[in-house]
Amino acid sequence: MTGIRVLTGDRPTGPLHIGHYFGSLRNRVRLQGQGADLFVVIADYQVLTDRDVAENLQEYVEELLLDYLAVGIDPAASTIFTHSHVASLNQLLLPLLSLVSVAELRRNPTVKDEIAASRQARVSGLMFTYPVHQAADILFCGADVVPVGQDQLPHLELTRLLARRFNERYGQLFTEPEALLGEAPALLGVDGRKMSKSRENAIALGAGEDETANLIRRAKTDAERVITYEPERRPEVSSLVLLAALCQDRRPEDVAEEVGDGGAGRLKAVVTEALNEHLRPIRARRAELARDRGELRRILCAGNEKANAVADRTLEAVRDRMGMVYS
Amino acid sequence: MTGIRVLTGDRPTGPLHIGHYFGSLRNRVRLQGQGADLFVVIADYQVLTDRDVAENLQEYVEELLLDYLAVGIDPAASTIFTHSHVASLNQLLLPLLSLVSVAELRRNPTVKDEIAASRQARVSGLMFTYPVHQAADILFCGADVVPVGQDQLPHLELTRLLARRFNERYGQLFTEPEALLGEAPALLGVDGRKMSKSRENAIALGAGEDETANLIRRAKTDAERVITYEPERRPEVSSLVLLAALCQDRRPEDVAEEVGDGGAGRLKAVVTEALNEHLRPIRARRAELARDRGELRRILCAGNEKANAVADRTLEAVRDRMGMVYS
Repeated sequence: MTGIRVLTGDRPTGPLHIGHYFGSLRNRVRLQGQGADLFVVIADYQVLTDRDVAENLQEYVEELLLDYLAVGIDPAASTIFTHSHVASLNQLLLPLLSLVSVAELRRNPTVKDEIAASRQARVSGLMFTYPVHQAADILFCGADVVPVGQDQLPHLELTRLLARRFNERYGQLFTEPEALLGEAPALLGVDGRKMSKSRENAIALGAGEDETANLIRRAKTDAERVITYEPERRPEVSSLVLLAALCQDRRPEDVAEEVGDGGAGRLKAVVTEALNEHLRPIRARRAELARDRGELRRILCAGNEKANAVADRTLEAVRDRMGMVYS
Repeated sequence: MTGIRVLTGDRPTGPLHIGHYFGSLRNRVRLQGQGADLFVVIADYQVLTDRDVAENLQEYVEELLLDYLAVGIDPAASTIFTHSHVASLNQLLLPLLSLVSVAELRRNPTVKDEIAASRQARVSGLMFTYPVHQAADILFCGADVVPVGQDQLPHLELTRLLARRFNERYGQLFTEPEALLGEAPALLGVDGRKMSKSRENAIALGAGEDETANLIRRAKTDAERVITYEPERRPEVSSLVLLAALCQDRRPEDVAEEVGDGGAGRLKAVVTEALNEHLRPIRARRAELARDRGELRRILCAGNEKANAVADRTLEAVRDRMGMVYS
């Protein structure tokens, strides 16, 4: 992966949880370790796609930054930045919007789903166009690879289409990024539903050990005594088994067999112990980092500065190709 | 008008013609003379709303700049800038898009008309969202007044709506701009249709005197010998009468009476003489300015620099109101 540029990111809507960690963050750190050049966008404008106002942004951006650094994203090797502070990246929205039709935007299946799930009565212009903004994220830094889930594939396809159209119309400039399709492990929230910050059923990466224990104690299980790993038939129990297995880098079947007829109580004790142990060094680093807010700000400033330099260069090349050079 | 900020502008799709001059440019110079603080945007991105590629941009931007300076827009008093070089202005598109619904964008009657008239088979995302981009033009510089034609009123109404919504949601920041509704004089092209660069029926501001004479000689008239000013019944003849009247600052009825039974030939001679005389100093200045391309570039650079400073300040205030301050 040496020299391969990778774009990832999150919306600052609250601290990240173990679903994000096992589904995405760990993978980013792995890519970084393999020599990939990671760009991590804190997508503050995109918070507004599915709600009217973005709340607690300062707090949430800081939490996100803490989560990133705690899991091992290294600001000396990778670039962490916020959308709102990289004007040249945002300007790319304009030329890219000229390359896509309203009909194409309307057909995007993920946007359709998100509109259905959103808290807004009306679809905002930002919701409608954010896949183009995401394309700008990917193209401004010339990302070769974008780790995505299944639902993000239409966005990546649009990005590839926009890159192709730009290159055809104005001359070769943009890399067509490849999807790195990752299967996020099927971790459920403690209520048995999809794990989500907004449902309050998630275990935050930065949660305390007691809080973690309490949440797992509350976790939904089923009436069968013997613990098995059967995700289809026993989703809640299997999610707990899987969580312990992920923490200990074992097969979930082995974890289940070990707990055996210990029942849900024993399973929960095993999971709690495994998760708290796995996260202990991360949480310690997180607490340590949280003590120096000045340093956090410096890290973000430096990331934004680097992203601006990259975006300025890209925008200049885009203007050049489009004939918008007047000096 | 002292201290009143006014936003106007044009798309760089070719040199301006006498329709632009009598309909808009003259008014801008008048406003400037009354002490207004003029911002003039050369809307290079917006060329792409109704065509796939913006051609000859460097040439057209220079022509536009020459037209502005020749008619008397003073770069020391007013700010001339190009969209593509003011990133913070363009970034404002994002927060503004969050304040408008897709349904509201779709209802815009002017966009509907322009889509019908455009050369594109498909409606691009840029065409769909450009009224929001126009709102960014107006709001970034805090324009108090925007001179508009009837067809631009829906855009100004949208700008006012976006300003109100932003202020309500995030706290008072934006001025709600007022429309300065101007009636453009009903000057027809030499073929009797609407005057338009793309129809090649227009007399360019910078055309030579012979070229002007030839174009007017070709102008469509009618079979009646006696010249009268009856715009409804005799649109072509009346347009010529009006043009002479505008040049000589007289009533069109008086011009018509003076020509009387001289017929179309006499009328055309009068119009040619009046127009060439009126434009002579402007054309001389234009030719003079065209000799120093370096100076033109310096003027545009200085305008862009000033627009950037204003846009950076506005964007900073917008980020502050939206809670996007992380340092």
